[in-house]
Amino acid sequence: MEENRQMAGKQSLLFKNPPYIQTSACIAGKKEGEGPLGHLIEEINEDPMFGMNTWEEAESSLQTLTVNKLLKKANLTADEIRYIFAGDLLGQLIGTTFGIKEFDIPLFGLYGACSTMGESMALASMCVNAGYADRVIALASSHFAGAEKQFRFPLEYGNQRPLSASWTVTGCGSVIIGKEKSLVKIAGITTGKVVDYGVKDSMNMGACMAPAAADLIYANFMDLNVDEKYYDMIITGDLGNIGQTILLELLKDKGFDISKNHMDCGLMIYDESTQDTHAGGSGCGCSAVVLCCYILKQLEKKRWNRVLFIPTGAMLSPVSFNEGKSVPGVAHGIILESV
Amino acid sequence: MEENRQMAGKQSLLFKNPPYIQTSACIAGKKEGEGPLGHLIEEINEDPMFGMNTWEEAESSLQTLTVNKLLKKANLTADEIRYIFAGDLLGQLIGTTFGIKEFDIPLFGLYGACSTMGESMALASMCVNAGYADRVIALASSHFAGAEKQFRFPLEYGNQRPLSASWTVTGCGSVIIGKEKSLVKIAGITTGKVVDYGVKDSMNMGACMAPAAADLIYANFMDLNVDEKYYDMIITGDLGNIGQTILLELLKDKGFDISKNHMDCGLMIYDESTQDTHAGGSGCGCSAVVLCCYILKQLEKKRWNRVLFIPTGAMLSPVSFNEGKSVPGVAHGIILESV
Repeated sequence: MEENRQMAGKQSLLFKNPPYIQTSACIAGKKEGEGPLGHLIEEINEDPMFGMNTWEEAESSLQTLTVNKLLKKANLTADEIRYIFAGDLLGQLIGTTFGIKEFDIPLFGLYGACSTMGESMALASMCVNAGYADRVIALASSHFAGAEKQFRFPLEYGNQRPLSASWTVTGCGSVIIGKEKSLVKIAGITTGKVVDYGVKDSMNMGACMAPAAADLIYANFMDLNVDEKYYDMIITGDLGNIGQTILLELLKDKGFDISKNHMDCGLMIYDESTQDTHAGGSGCGCSAVVLCCYILKQLEKKRWNRVLFIPTGAMLSPVSFNEGKSVPGVAHGIILESV
Repeated sequence: MEENRQMAGKQSLLFKNPPYIQTSACIAGKKEGEGPLGHLIEEINEDPMFGMNTWEEAESSLQTLTVNKLLKKANLTADEIRYIFAGDLLGQLIGTTFGIKEFDIPLFGLYGACSTMGESMALASMCVNAGYADRVIALASSHFAGAEKQFRFPLEYGNQRPLSASWTVTGCGSVIIGKEKSLVKIAGITTGKVVDYGVKDSMNMGACMAPAAADLIYANFMDLNVDEKYYDMIITGDLGNIGQTILLELLKDKGFDISKNHMDCGLMIYDESTQDTHAGGSGCGCSAVVLCCYILKQLEKKRWNRVLFIPTGAMLSPVSFNEGKSVPGVAHGIILESV
């Protein structure tokens, strides 16, 4: 077994046979289409119901449409995908269950809150690198209206949103990770812990997640014995502007200044000044869509050579929040390299 | 990479370096302690609140107590565990988030409904076999009162339960999976798909899950080119008596008679005639506890040499159920062998 050892430090793996991101596909909603990355998102669906009758079915439909698109782009049938690693934000993963069931692909259902795209890509690449599959799908989705209903208030209630609140992205991003060479490889991963600074404000998820992101980035640097200069870009999932400020501070305290090469998907997907999205975008779909429509393209074009991609999640439920619990964060890091 | 190929058929893996179940630990509640396996469960906690103030915190406390017990039995510190693969039934996995956060172990959060112990053991053993970790924890829990509140009605409502309903086990089971030799190894896994026969009755989860269990067992037989005689015992998670009947029928239709060596954890953990549990036990904790207190012991004592262990899950949420959706099933198979 020893020859397989690929452990780096306490929390990271560097793959011997780095898997490739062979194809990606994403679909997002109207508001995302109107944002700064809108022209890059390959498909905008203007119907927030995605042809269905409930918000939850809408999210499932979004997943189904995205997987169909992904398979079509890759010229593959579902039968040629060995596993799917997928998740969403809804209780008991109903977005995913009903979204992917028609494909009849063995499923590993995941919950990492908004870090799910990182969790799914981590497990998917571990699986391919180990030779357990030739190709698998990693996927995550979120839907604004479904998330508001799940975590806060139904839209019909018309509640006000504080400026620290983020806007859940309606979108689904998916990738096929496999062993056939492509333009982007997954060189390694860093797996996050639950990090709890005791923040209790579910309307300020950036503050809840920033400590987990800082912890993950620091662990990655220590495990690989590198610093911020090792990466062309360090891209967190959905910290938003408040979370970003906290992240930069926390890392500065540890001796690292990532302010020059940090981006946050939540700050990229909407135009804060015109779209009324307050602290930024959030939801599993946020980092998943930005990965597919922007980050991978930059790597494919070799504008960046190495990126640390870190979807970030806030671990709360309406029950835990109403019972006065804190909102811990979690983050999953993926090392992406252009080939 | 080819030398690593361990794929068997469409859905199974047979490990080259089968990981071992090095230690197990479980804790269950009073009712489980009064059941037929009660004398084998290593710790019964008579306090349904597990020292906390809410049902959700109670489940988290149960997880914390179980991991502490597991580490103590293994004479390890949390620092010596590389990953934890864990999940529960509560929306957004709050049982797990708050249950394991103090251990500071990198987390892969999983949702497979009541199949979660199978999903966690599958990913954990894939991870160890590939050399990504020397030892990891796989864990799942459920709590009767938390699950009733989550999926049906709060206990205070005093609703009646149809005879087809199952009783959620209050319990947590956990194992350390590692590369050091022990008395039980994980020879392989079979990963399930979402299987939906259109059953819509959340009070008859056995019927919802039986097709997924049948599908999984059939896939395992086909992938490995074996039949029911290959296993000393085929043990499903929580089908209960109605689900068991359906499972046996479905497999008979496919040409396999497993009636002589099938057991179901849901039928083992309570005494139907005296404990008023109707169709049997259910919940992630059901198969997790029965695994730890009974199945592993039988393998350690070589009363059985090979077991196909199949936790089964019903994929529903209160939202999907109330919106009239069906309840699809999923199952994860683990091939356990005595060493």
